[in-house]
Amino acid sequence: MLMSMYKHQLPRCSAAAAAAGAAAAPPQAEADASGLSTLVDAQMTWPARTHGAGTLREADAGKEITVCGWVDRNRNMGGLCFLDVRDHTGLLQVVGEPQTHPEASRAAARLRSEYVVAVTGQLRVRKDPNPKLPTGGVELLATSMSVLNGVGRLLPFPVSEAEEGEAPREELRLKNRVLDLRRPQMNTNLRLRHRLVRTIRRFLEDGHDFVEVETPLLTRSTPEGARDYIVPSRLGAGDWYALPQSPQLFKQMLMVAGYDRYYQIARCFRDEDLRADRQPEFTQLDMEMAWMDRDAIMGLMEELIATIFREIKGVDLPRPFTRLTYADAMACFGSDKPDTRFGLEFKDVSSAVAGCGFRVFASAVADGGAVKAIVVPDGKRISNSRVKPKGDISNEAVAAGAAGLAFIRVQEGGAIDAAKPIKEGLSAEQAAALIAAAGAQPGDLLLLAAGPEATVHRALDRVRLFLGRDLGLIDASKDSLLWVTDFPMFEWNEDEQRLEALHHPFTAPNPEDLAAADGDVRGARALAYDLVYNGVEIGGGSLRIYRRDIQQRVFDAIGLSQEEASAKFGYLLDCLDIGAPPHGGLAFGLDRLAMLLAGAPSIRDVIAFPKTTQAQCLLTGAPAAVADRQLEELHVAVVEEKPKGQQQQQQQQQQQQQQQQAAADSNSKQ
Amino acid sequence: MLMSMYKHQLPRCSAAAAAAGAAAAPPQAEADASGLSTLVDAQMTWPARTHGAGTLREADAGKEITVCGWVDRNRNMGGLCFLDVRDHTGLLQVVGEPQTHPEASRAAARLRSEYVVAVTGQLRVRKDPNPKLPTGGVELLATSMSVLNGVGRLLPFPVSEAEEGEAPREELRLKNRVLDLRRPQMNTNLRLRHRLVRTIRRFLEDGHDFVEVETPLLTRSTPEGARDYIVPSRLGAGDWYALPQSPQLFKQMLMVAGYDRYYQIARCFRDEDLRADRQPEFTQLDMEMAWMDRDAIMGLMEELIATIFREIKGVDLPRPFTRLTYADAMACFGSDKPDTRFGLEFKDVSSAVAGCGFRVFASAVADGGAVKAIVVPDGKRISNSRVKPKGDISNEAVAAGAAGLAFIRVQEGGAIDAAKPIKEGLSAEQAAALIAAAGAQPGDLLLLAAGPEATVHRALDRVRLFLGRDLGLIDASKDSLLWVTDFPMFEWNEDEQRLEALHHPFTAPNPEDLAAADGDVRGARALAYDLVYNGVEIGGGSLRIYRRDIQQRVFDAIGLSQEEASAKFGYLLDCLDIGAPPHGGLAFGLDRLAMLLAGAPSIRDVIAFPKTTQAQCLLTGAPAAVADRQLEELHVAVVEEKPKGQQQQQQQQQQQQQQQQAAADSNSKQ
Repeated sequence: MLMSMYKHQLPRCSAAAAAAGAAAAPPQAEADASGLSTLVDAQMTWPARTHGAGTLREADAGKEITVCGWVDRNRNMGGLCFLDVRDHTGLLQVVGEPQTHPEASRAAARLRSEYVVAVTGQLRVRKDPNPKLPTGGVELLATSMSVLNGVGRLLPFPVSEAEEGEAPREELRLKNRVLDLRRPQMNTNLRLRHRLVRTIRRFLEDGHDFVEVETPLLTRSTPEGARDYIVPSRLGAGDWYALPQSPQLFKQMLMVAGYDRYYQIARCFRDEDLRADRQPEFTQLDMEMAWMDRDAIMGLMEELIATIFREIKGVDLPRPFTRLTYADAMACFGSDKPDTRFGLEFKDVSSAVAGCGFRVFASAVADGGAVKAIVVPDGKRISNSRVKPKGDISNEAVAAGAAGLAFIRVQEGGAIDAAKPIKEGLSAEQAAALIAAAGAQPGDLLLLAAGPEATVHRALDRVRLFLGRDLGLIDASKDSLLWVTDFPMFEWNEDEQRLEALHHPFTAPNPEDLAAADGDVRGARALAYDLVYNGVEIGGGSLRIYRRDIQQRVFDAIGLSQEEASAKFGYLLDCLDIGAPPHGGLAFGLDRLAMLLAGAPSIRDVIAFPKTTQAQCLLTGAPAAVADRQLEELHVAVVEEKPKGQQQQQQQQQQQQQQQQAAADSNSKQ
Repeated sequence: MLMSMYKHQLPRCSAAAAAAGAAAAPPQAEADASGLSTLVDAQMTWPARTHGAGTLREADAGKEITVCGWVDRNRNMGGLCFLDVRDHTGLLQVVGEPQTHPEASRAAARLRSEYVVAVTGQLRVRKDPNPKLPTGGVELLATSMSVLNGVGRLLPFPVSEAEEGEAPREELRLKNRVLDLRRPQMNTNLRLRHRLVRTIRRFLEDGHDFVEVETPLLTRSTPEGARDYIVPSRLGAGDWYALPQSPQLFKQMLMVAGYDRYYQIARCFRDEDLRADRQPEFTQLDMEMAWMDRDAIMGLMEELIATIFREIKGVDLPRPFTRLTYADAMACFGSDKPDTRFGLEFKDVSSAVAGCGFRVFASAVADGGAVKAIVVPDGKRISNSRVKPKGDISNEAVAAGAAGLAFIRVQEGGAIDAAKPIKEGLSAEQAAALIAAAGAQPGDLLLLAAGPEATVHRALDRVRLFLGRDLGLIDASKDSLLWVTDFPMFEWNEDEQRLEALHHPFTAPNPEDLAAADGDVRGARALAYDLVYNGVEIGGGSLRIYRRDIQQRVFDAIGLSQEEASAKFGYLLDCLDIGAPPHGGLAFGLDRLAMLLAGAPSIRDVIAFPKTTQAQCLLTGAPAAVADRQLEELHVAVVEEKPKGQQQQQQQQQQQQQQQQAAADSNSKQ
């Protein structure tokens, strides 16, 4: 009605008005030569820049420019003052010229690192260009200088790349995280992470019709896998929410609800004992798809990963990616996440040495174990002392649980050189068979482990990775992407004397195996797939069970009674009864992916406000005590420490649980 | 090295192979006419569709098509069977023709609603097109039919729009949320929400250089504003994390760290007593900008909102949006979030009636209060009985805390008709002055409230909104966007007898007011702004204090000692000492915005898995009890209910706190 009367009644915001005048205001430095704080504008203002400092080039020369940012460095040279002003786009040299602009120049001369300034002036071509700087061809002649904020304390480390020596130690960085985030390296990392997420979103949304759906963070504890973080309910005394370890159940429910292609950049939580590359809260690219089979899902994911590598790293990945079954990965590399940037695959020589005179080999085979070898070409680069007991390479095998490492050198003509018991224990035929089985050539060094297969795999995996680094076999410029597929559905839990799901209990068994075993799921391969990048698992997933009868068989196999299953997962089971479509999905660890793409040493370097391995935030001091009133309202109390005897008992229990935890770790794949 | 040997070793996934064959497999229905379950394919398969069911048109006729989805309806007509198959793109009619494809037809005839099918066949033009359906010109003649899953229980409500009567009641929907999400209305809502977020991201990223930075969810309790949800720490006995009420402190720290333009679609948490449109966890579009003043921020936000309305609603909003100061909004509408789709602004008639003979008016003015009027044109449409005591309009005023409502009818010639005490209490001059002050015309009805200004505002605000609806003054097709600006910095907390921040204590005072009051912040206006859409606050924010000295003055004003400030916000204060740039920001309530754009009655209709007003998830049963072992590990215990006397006392305390809570509610703006 009469609304026109209100339009633009508001006078131009005084802050804006002040800002407009700020650049022209004289600096207030002169009165008090002792206090730098008097440099700072008396009034708060919110000025605006015309250009990013790092974006200016020769073509901009002659323009009237305002840059806003931090003083990176300040150099006085022969009366002239040279400031580097930094913002997120980069650095620009600002010149204070006493002859032409005495006031701006006097203010500039007194500025220190990390002061906040808005500088207006004319951009001009430099007489002495700095080829190291993108803006090195130009400089800004300051006509006015507004000092907006100072630095009130001694900074614990420099921000400027120019003044940076060694990177400050991490604890200091995490305590002073805000200053740390201002460092160009961290700026680059976090912006790379942003571009990564942006690339992912656009790929999924624009080309492939995915919708993002937010799933709850206050949800119900699912006591499977890792420990939950839990949250007391104020309205329901004694009840707790749990923070999700992943949106697994919700994304499967979304498939049943008809949201064919779901994704979410999802925050997940696990109260684990943290290793160096884990965080209590972490971010996952979570996806689920109906109406796609395994090959279709893997193909789409290859397209996604290739897009990421092209956009973020400028690398064109060859496709399709290499695929290895779990069985082959274990047989050849002793690992379900092998680094395939180099060879040194294991060779099974068990049949060659079965029944031989070297007891260690013979009994390993006789007991149902294996003897496997790594063949090192040009074996003379490794001395005997390194592979004998106490040698560094032998130590790797021992650290992984092997009794030791055996070694054999292949001579010209096919003879072998080895320790006496081996040499004497192998007939010429057996030696020849061994060399043939290993595919070895004269000059090669064979490193062998014998025993139960799992032990042999663990030992040789560790030796192989050690040799890869030690012999410089790993090409750091290589990007090796590998699918590992056909995991077993279950593994045996020794402690609980029962099968447990290798991935999670919603993973679909291979229907072919099911048909062959008359419906028995226990020996079936899973329709699961992990993606491994340079030896690091970056994602994984599976097709899911969408039928209630099959789901029940899996619960039976892991010893989950119908009552337990219904209590734990009843709401998911109910979904299988209302028209669940065939679906599958996977998840990528976003922090880890960002870390690898940034070439950062830690995931903490791609997270703005990370926690330590003690799950603490050194910046805010979280976690911390809360007010008693808060606890009362929530009907909870902190339990005092127990007397010592009980404490020890508890610690033992905890240790046991940690071990179970480690075993359950591999259950965490999506 | 020898990697080529592993390439594509994997045989074509058996599931895929099975899927490829599935469509051709004969249905297994015939054997067991009693059990529909026998219809379902024996083996799990993961088939793929060629087209979305709702995307097919006449131009696609003749194509070989596979659609996958749910049976929406099944009609048998004269031997032919007509199935509607539904996926997220819509419906398609599938025909089972016994003469040409007896097996597919027999299977189709036995399908019930919500069965999951993959149908292959030839698309053909319909002889009797259905103009109501986008695919109404075509139908799919089924040549093969794969039944992938059945429905194992009686569904609590229909999914099909065709079978839907009244919407099912909400409790039933929330308990059966997965089925509810399959309903076309919920599908539309969640996809609208996705498009909303997508539009926002692209606007901010592509046009305006914003980067998204994730901030922690496990952080530290800031005992200001609403209640925190807290999380016990396992590693630090007695310590707690808090889930953030907003990323306020982190986003300000990001500004200090040099991330000029930050945004995040951020999950936030408040343990409040929930009203109908609140959720314990909710989503906020959170933004913060350095190097922009208030007008620049408001201008950019107008561009964002206009883009959203254009993309999502197809509406072009006029810009700039209307702006009202807080003072004017309160004076004219008695509200800081007025619905400006209609008029009925308040008129202050205090001076006209000062000292008059009607005691209620005279004493209100004499006591420092006000007399204000709403002028209703064509007043005869409202009868006296509605505005007299116990009348529905009068009741609105009383419910808002007024003693009552006075009314005056303006006669031809300027005489007034009113209750006797008013008519006799006003001289002819006073009556004329009142009519002039109200700007009333003959035939108008004046509704008046008298008393303390706050009471008058509350009463007339409520009366105004009631009349707006009652008289049909609100044009539902109108989109009215309004900025409210220049809030006071503080309001008086009667309970605690101190000032408290109206927004939050980091809001910048207007430097002009500061200068005029010699630096005293207490009477200053804040550089804050709220955005109101059709009477609902959808977002708000402010410029922030970036200087430590000013921040200290604000803490002083609200009675926060230096020690307390340092304990609570030390890490933010430290940031003001290391070169904080001028910055500001705001946040929009994303759930509410999505709800308004979708025209949904509740925010629960735009959240996939919402909680009830009791903060419960009816689908999963969260919150729930957890294992004792979990609590032991976390060093916490649930406190048993107290005996009755204590309980009552506690409840009283809680009520008191709730009232304080309500007062603190307005502190929640970003």
